[in-house]
Amino acid sequence: MPSQKLEAISKHIDENFQFSVDRLIDWLKIPSVSTDSAFDADVLRAANWMGDQLKDMGFGTELIETDGHPVLFAELKSNNPNAPTVLYYGHYDVQPGDPFELWDTAPFEPVITDSKYGKKIVARGAEDDKGQVMTFIEAFRAWLATEGELPCNVKIMLEGEEETGSPSLADFLEKNKDKLAADICIVCDTGMWDIDTPAITSSIRGLVDATITIKGPNRDLHSGMYGGVVVNPLNALSKIVAELHDENGRVQIKDFYDGVPELTDAERADLALLNHDDDAYFGEIGLSGPAGEPEFTSVEKMWARPACDLNGIWGGYTGEGHKTVIASEANLKLSCRLVGDQDPKAILENLEAFFQERLPKDFTMTLTNHGMGVAVRLPVDSVYIQAARAGLDEIYDNPTKLIGTGGSIPAVGLIREHLGMESVMVGFGLDDDNVHSPNEKYELTCLQRGIHSHAAILEKLAEI
Amino acid sequence: MPSQKLEAISKHIDENFQFSVDRLIDWLKIPSVSTDSAFDADVLRAANWMGDQLKDMGFGTELIETDGHPVLFAELKSNNPNAPTVLYYGHYDVQPGDPFELWDTAPFEPVITDSKYGKKIVARGAEDDKGQVMTFIEAFRAWLATEGELPCNVKIMLEGEEETGSPSLADFLEKNKDKLAADICIVCDTGMWDIDTPAITSSIRGLVDATITIKGPNRDLHSGMYGGVVVNPLNALSKIVAELHDENGRVQIKDFYDGVPELTDAERADLALLNHDDDAYFGEIGLSGPAGEPEFTSVEKMWARPACDLNGIWGGYTGEGHKTVIASEANLKLSCRLVGDQDPKAILENLEAFFQERLPKDFTMTLTNHGMGVAVRLPVDSVYIQAARAGLDEIYDNPTKLIGTGGSIPAVGLIREHLGMESVMVGFGLDDDNVHSPNEKYELTCLQRGIHSHAAILEKLAEI
Repeated sequence: MPSQKLEAISKHIDENFQFSVDRLIDWLKIPSVSTDSAFDADVLRAANWMGDQLKDMGFGTELIETDGHPVLFAELKSNNPNAPTVLYYGHYDVQPGDPFELWDTAPFEPVITDSKYGKKIVARGAEDDKGQVMTFIEAFRAWLATEGELPCNVKIMLEGEEETGSPSLADFLEKNKDKLAADICIVCDTGMWDIDTPAITSSIRGLVDATITIKGPNRDLHSGMYGGVVVNPLNALSKIVAELHDENGRVQIKDFYDGVPELTDAERADLALLNHDDDAYFGEIGLSGPAGEPEFTSVEKMWARPACDLNGIWGGYTGEGHKTVIASEANLKLSCRLVGDQDPKAILENLEAFFQERLPKDFTMTLTNHGMGVAVRLPVDSVYIQAARAGLDEIYDNPTKLIGTGGSIPAVGLIREHLGMESVMVGFGLDDDNVHSPNEKYELTCLQRGIHSHAAILEKLAEI
Repeated sequence: MPSQKLEAISKHIDENFQFSVDRLIDWLKIPSVSTDSAFDADVLRAANWMGDQLKDMGFGTELIETDGHPVLFAELKSNNPNAPTVLYYGHYDVQPGDPFELWDTAPFEPVITDSKYGKKIVARGAEDDKGQVMTFIEAFRAWLATEGELPCNVKIMLEGEEETGSPSLADFLEKNKDKLAADICIVCDTGMWDIDTPAITSSIRGLVDATITIKGPNRDLHSGMYGGVVVNPLNALSKIVAELHDENGRVQIKDFYDGVPELTDAERADLALLNHDDDAYFGEIGLSGPAGEPEFTSVEKMWARPACDLNGIWGGYTGEGHKTVIASEANLKLSCRLVGDQDPKAILENLEAFFQERLPKDFTMTLTNHGMGVAVRLPVDSVYIQAARAGLDEIYDNPTKLIGTGGSIPAVGLIREHLGMESVMVGFGLDDDNVHSPNEKYELTCLQRGIHSHAAILEKLAEI
């Protein structure tokens, strides 16, 4: 049963929901693409936009410089002397909008359209992570508007480099330990089980990513004059990439599986109990079923097995028509998802060696790392997870599921490493939200119930 | 010994050479990139520019429509009633300028700079093929200015689609047989042995090219959510490409070597006599030596063996930084160089089958062909080749070499097939001209002696 306080707050949330949507739309209009320096001014603008919102709500705010994009920090103390301190993590940067031609509407011109669940907001960042960040921001706003205070001491840390692998975060956390001190971190960047079933994510995969360029001839060549007598860099790169996996989908980088835990029978049974609907999951993206290591289920592969994927490849002539050229260089972007105790640094080194050892004669290569993070599994019996679950139970009829995710949130590992703090990951995304894809969207239902949920969780955390 | 006529013409060529250079510069300023429809107006402008030049010289000219870019046709009869008719072939289209960042100067802003041979003109098309076309055009101009007439009946056919594989040329030739009727075709789109040694090219490789797209998931995916459970189209494409060649560089497309003639001992001995300087040829492009089929010399591989090369590859995120996406589609551009009786149509079919058979489950593919041409070997003892050789002997101290080329000029095969006419390929390019590459150039020495050569060859052809 919700408390009287929560009932009043919930009423306020529903009555003012349109304003919440309007604010999210305003924020989504700012193309805060962190990976592309052409958008640097917009990234800063997105941070300041949220800073102004928080200032208006009474938070003390600070935009803290890093080697890359700044971190927006905000803080508001509770009047409750026994209140715990909660650090909220999210990110204000977004993925690039391209390929633009595959969007039905412009990625940075948010629109509200019909969805199978009611209404949805379509824009880059609608879910990941601006919509998700708004679930706790608007919960604070409702608490403050209704009760004039927050039941917990709240700190907020919004970074601007999550989509590029959080390269500056470790240094930032190390330098700002005291400022960030809290009892628990709440991370809002994950998904639900389905639209009616909330989820707390207790494991995430780690990440290593890199851009690799191999170079053969010192200039582009005419393929008639040189075809058959030089090693073509595009063919050569394809040959190396082809060797990254064996026929069973196992990654062939040296020592790649060091630190990957064996799944126990009990863990496999727990995952099987979730009854993941493969037909729906793969059918929705036009595939008849899962690929990859045949001895694992798709949920096991997504949450408990590592992966290595090309994220981009390019070289030579890619325009209209044809150009009979042998390119001097070939390029790719690649990322590995890690589990258990896989060591990102060792994997990066072995990845470089994998390419280096296979380079044709006379070839050179460069590798640029964009960031890395370890895999994390949270203790599922903590009081904070119990509080989050109790909060979600106030809002949803279906019981909360404890799940993993195949995605990577470097922040979670770094927060544990540098602040000695655990994180509770509770978010309101859906599998079909098209995050990192054209037509990214966030269900208004998810936004609204997400706000309710964070309002309730905040009350439960205060009772610990 | 040059004739009196030729001496006067040669004097005129040298005295007016700066005007020839200026005209070439004007033509090079028009970016007639045939492969990219954004340049369609420029392609037309380049054709008309040359049409106006020829009209001023007294030629009857006609811009003849095709399904693609038009063909510029021009004709001027000799007063000599016994004169043979010579059809000159060249092309007024050029390769794209990209990658622009690798040019020292803008590709369509021609400049004259110092070279190891004296002076060179740097621009896209400087050699291929505008500079080369100018060698015969300016030869006609000098004949007309000095003698008031041409010693042969001259027809000129300049196409605008050579750089895209001449897709409309077969149809054009078939429809204009009577108009194009001649005793011999002179093609000016090939190279010299070295700056002081002219060459007549007696064999060219054929060509098949295609753009291939493979598609897996129906949209781009988050590599965290889907990494390890879907077949990544970029990895899948790389795997197929890796199978195109075996470890000895042999192409694995079905029946690919059908029609490839065995090199006889005599042919191999002839090629060996040319003393190709591998160290210089590969050293100039930053490589220590040739690659490819180990049992053949580099000249054999370039002129007498087929090849299959990627010309471009792209898919996923290729911008700054990183985007952890699994792309829905992966794309490549590929071309095969053919020799002997290899059948371009059969190879195109088997190429498509090669990819189709290797597509992962649920994947689809599309293949777009941009053009094809058969390989051609010309009879080296014809009177026309003898005349061309005699003309070149008037200009150069070194004897003319009879060579092959690894490049493809679809026109030569099509002219034989549709007009029943042989071609003599005589051109003045050098290996280091950077055709199809940044900083394409043409030596002014090559241009000037090329003009002299065509003036002389024209006189020799009239004497047949």
